[in-house]
Amino acid sequence: MSPVSSPVKPTTYLPSEIDVALAAIRFDTQGLVPAIAQQHGTGEVLMMAWMDRNAVAETMRTGRACYWSRSRQAPWRKGDTSGHIQTLVDLRIDCDGDTLLVLVDQTGVACHTGRHNCFFQAIRGGALETIAPIVVDMDKTGKD
Amino acid sequence: MSPVSSPVKPTTYLPSEIDVALAAIRFDTQGLVPAIAQQHGTGEVLMMAWMDRNAVAETMRTGRACYWSRSRQAPWRKGDTSGHIQTLVDLRIDCDGDTLLVLVDQTGVACHTGRHNCFFQAIRGGALETIAPIVVDMDKTGKD
Repeated sequence: MSPVSSPVKPTTYLPSEIDVALAAIRFDTQGLVPAIAQQHGTGEVLMMAWMDRNAVAETMRTGRACYWSRSRQAPWRKGDTSGHIQTLVDLRIDCDGDTLLVLVDQTGVACHTGRHNCFFQAIRGGALETIAPIVVDMDKTGKD
Repeated sequence: MSPVSSPVKPTTYLPSEIDVALAAIRFDTQGLVPAIAQQHGTGEVLMMAWMDRNAVAETMRTGRACYWSRSRQAPWRKGDTSGHIQTLVDLRIDCDGDTLLVLVDQTGVACHTGRHNCFFQAIRGGALETIAPIVVDMDKTGKD
């Protein structure tokens, strides 16, 4: 599926600005930093994933969220397979420099299960319950 | 400072429900899981911290967010020093079971710097800028 463009103009950064951000981020011993993707405007927390230095730089350079896939041990440009891209709106660094908040405009859905966000399991009536519907059949779009 | 009570009634869980949640969470090799604290209602992402099994159980049992402090290597019941507690509203587990979204009602401020949330650094005009004001003098309340 070819990526659907977002109505939001991507925020991109100059190489010098990327260097400033990278200098402020404290990557962990594996060279990674957790990145929380939040929908711009609504505040919905979409997902949490990890970025290495290259993913941070690529996200800031291109205005599209890119991560490091720990399961695949490979760069992961969100939406390359599914078309469900995340357009960068703003990048925030926390007080300790060890967590990122990535404000994005999500095209389609964030979760590989086809739900809009990944946080759909909660305790209800004594059991683990799925509290959000599948809105996209990811078998048809390809998962990423 | 004694904790200020929240107007929100804390959500608490039965021991059997805590067991269900703990079984669904995939703790990392250090026995920790990242927990994103989000303000109920507004959607503001307040902070990201880590929980071990005891912190998850204590949070669910008491209805007050508790974490594991990696820097102090000790349990960390948010607000015990500052009074700035987080009252639990709902606990969400993500698709892979390896990240928590903790919906809370924040009393006071979430950040140890006295800002309302921890994500106050952003790139503006080529430099790292602080984009949120200090709203509480944490030297007076004690930090946690």
